Amino acid sequence: MADMRTILETKKRGGKLAPEEIACFVHGVYDGSVPDYQAAAFLMAVRLMGMDEAETAALTLEMARTGAQADLSAIPGVKVDKHSTGGVGDLTTLVAVPLCAACGVPVAKMSGRALGHTGGTLDKLAAIPGLRTDLSMEAFVRQVQRIGCAVIGQTGDLAPVDKALYALRDVTATVDSIPLIASSILSKKIAAGCDAILLDVKTGSGALMPTLEDSRRLAEEMVRIGKAAGKRVCALITDMDEPLGRLIGNALEVKEALGILRGEETGRARDLCLEVAARMVALGTGEAVAAARLRTKAALEEGRGFAKLCEMVAAQGGDVRALEETDRLPGARLRVPLRAQEDGCVSALAARDLGLASNALGAGRARKEDPIDYGVGIECCVRVGDRVRRGQTLLLLHANDEARVGPALELAAGAVRLAPEAPQPRPLLFGAVE
Amino acid sequence: MADMRTILETKKRGGKLAPEEIACFVHGVYDGSVPDYQAAAFLMAVRLMGMDEAETAALTLEMARTGAQADLSAIPGVKVDKHSTGGVGDLTTLVAVPLCAACGVPVAKMSGRALGHTGGTLDKLAAIPGLRTDLSMEAFVRQVQRIGCAVIGQTGDLAPVDKALYALRDVTATVDSIPLIASSILSKKIAAGCDAILLDVKTGSGALMPTLEDSRRLAEEMVRIGKAAGKRVCALITDMDEPLGRLIGNALEVKEALGILRGEETGRARDLCLEVAARMVALGTGEAVAAARLRTKAALEEGRGFAKLCEMVAAQGGDVRALEETDRLPGARLRVPLRAQEDGCVSALAARDLGLASNALGAGRARKEDPIDYGVGIECCVRVGDRVRRGQTLLLLHANDEARVGPALELAAGAVRLAPEAPQPRPLLFGAVE
Repeated sequence: MADMRTILETKKRGGKLAPEEIACFVHGVYDGSVPDYQAAAFLMAVRLMGMDEAETAALTLEMARTGAQADLSAIPGVKVDKHSTGGVGDLTTLVAVPLCAACGVPVAKMSGRALGHTGGTLDKLAAIPGLRTDLSMEAFVRQVQRIGCAVIGQTGDLAPVDKALYALRDVTATVDSIPLIASSILSKKIAAGCDAILLDVKTGSGALMPTLEDSRRLAEEMVRIGKAAGKRVCALITDMDEPLGRLIGNALEVKEALGILRGEETGRARDLCLEVAARMVALGTGEAVAAARLRTKAALEEGRGFAKLCEMVAAQGGDVRALEETDRLPGARLRVPLRAQEDGCVSALAARDLGLASNALGAGRARKEDPIDYGVGIECCVRVGDRVRRGQTLLLLHANDEARVGPALELAAGAVRLAPEAPQPRPLLFGAVE
Repeated sequence: MADMRTILETKKRGGKLAPEEIACFVHGVYDGSVPDYQAAAFLMAVRLMGMDEAETAALTLEMARTGAQADLSAIPGVKVDKHSTGGVGDLTTLVAVPLCAACGVPVAKMSGRALGHTGGTLDKLAAIPGLRTDLSMEAFVRQVQRIGCAVIGQTGDLAPVDKALYALRDVTATVDSIPLIASSILSKKIAAGCDAILLDVKTGSGALMPTLEDSRRLAEEMVRIGKAAGKRVCALITDMDEPLGRLIGNALEVKEALGILRGEETGRARDLCLEVAARMVALGTGEAVAAARLRTKAALEEGRGFAKLCEMVAAQGGDVRALEETDRLPGARLRVPLRAQEDGCVSALAARDLGLASNALGAGRARKEDPIDYGVGIECCVRVGDRVRRGQTLLLLHANDEARVGPALELAAGAVRLAPEAPQPRPLLFGAVE
């Protein structure tokens, strides 16, 4: 039986851990025999000395099979899941999941809450009056069987070791480690029982991994490990230097998603939703991506994605009228503009700072137990590259609490940078790893 | 106010911590507001990313002044302390402390217990019947005032943060870090109130820092930090590839120390005791080392060191007759020889393995609460470089428990290596850092 001291000694010296040593660590965290301080030292040693692919795969699989595992076998076909490494204005799930289901590929998705400066799908869904995300496993499976999709919060005791380690990583400055991120994401997805996974790895200043090089390494690592676990996997590397969508905030992002599904919104958010959905369809059906793109676009244009979202919201107890008449969604009393101080070109809309500004208005939580104001957020009236005139509105803060406007405005002002010339345009999609 | 997440973030990226950040960490460990897991992550980050001299000095001083501090001001003159980084058969304190005091330089020393494969002065002293090492601070100071020396266990709440961190380092594989070792040793010594410190930094396979390069770095770092704290400091770098003395074990090392003080033993242990004592005298008086060497040697040859040890043992309640008639010390029932399997030259007597073998006989503890057998240990009948014949006794195990002989013999057999030719002789003293 391996012991933690030896494991720490090995990792600290940059050595490789054997699968049984990794299993010893995971089970020790699970049963409490590895105390937090040894787990914390382990996480820091891994953050600084790394793990190779075999070690990361062993950690992922061990975390996935320790604790409960979801059984989706009652749902026929290839069940596709998706995961984004976290972004600002990233409403992709709200659009891609119903689109994918509308193309006949079942999606049984467990989502998370907002974290740090990034939003969380669960909080966005909670902006829809009445909608429940705390379905039982049985109800979850039945809904996917019946209508082809469901999005709920994590149920049961899936990947409990990841949960424990995640909490520790957050307070020990060990979040930004490729093997720890890869194993955390994939262990949850594998335990959640899907057959195929579409990963949206964000890159840029608002992403967990700001550099393209690190984002690519993370994407490649996750694809290899997912495949080693017998899953169909594809990772997209997509921009998170500026917010994905035009709107940031919970109900605001629901509104933008509805606009996309109704064919009223165009732009980067719509483009990414279509690409993500197409990749999910391709993973689920095995068909070529080009063919899947055509099918997905048709589903969008024919309104079948919108219809599927309505079906899903209704199935989960939500008020479908709020999807047709968006005034029924939570809103904000105040509109506070941020105006350009000079003429120029928008050279940056820093996603991270805008996420924090939106949180400062009440859209996110400072502590886990804090309430959320679903109606507030930020509307971007310009995009990077736009030419603006002095006095023109750059951002519109949607606020409910005057006291929160000042700090949010300060953060938001720091997020927008003007320059004499437009910057080199940044692509939305940096690549796909299959 | 600095917070631990920022501190961990900085150190993990290889940045330098400001003195107030280090103070925040130390006070947080002291008052419990920094949980063990954050302290453990900090220790691993320091082990892997290092600390510069200013950071290490700040950590040392903050640990020294957090908690109680010993007040030795009632003792006139420069109070000298010594510290060894830990060795096998390292009886230096038992000889050097009385010799130094016999030369008129007061020594108020707090010692530790055995740790890992190395012995501890407190356990060796405890082999002398009746001797007490749990003196109160007042009794300790009075004894040094009266007879010039005392050796006791750590009293009061000196450097409590070091104590807490030491326990954590032991279980998180972060013992072998130069800044952590340096700050641990010096914080205790500074809190213990001495004016001058002689450091004996061991090097070789049985030392905490096996390589000469690391040992020298540790010595230099400690001398610089000690001086920055206003202390007189000198560090010797001395061999711990083979055991220092001929005997390993608690009562056995007391016997060898008595032999040295009575002028009956010669060799490396005596040489080092004389050098350590001379350096302590030189630190205390400010005189040249050469002059101090002459004085120390005279004190040894005239039996004044032996007389001073007797005085100290008597003052601490020990049975002085046991120093004259060593049969009164704890002994061992069994003598088990390890014999040479072939002709050859002794090329290694691995100190670490011999320390572990001695512990296996009962001379050390596997757990803190384990009892010690003061009578057992190992007698080295040969030294590195000796030519031996097949069948000749290499080691003699002094044992009391038959069941412990097998494992100890196996460890001991692995410690002795024979070769056709004698190895290059290793010096006892590799250098002095002042």
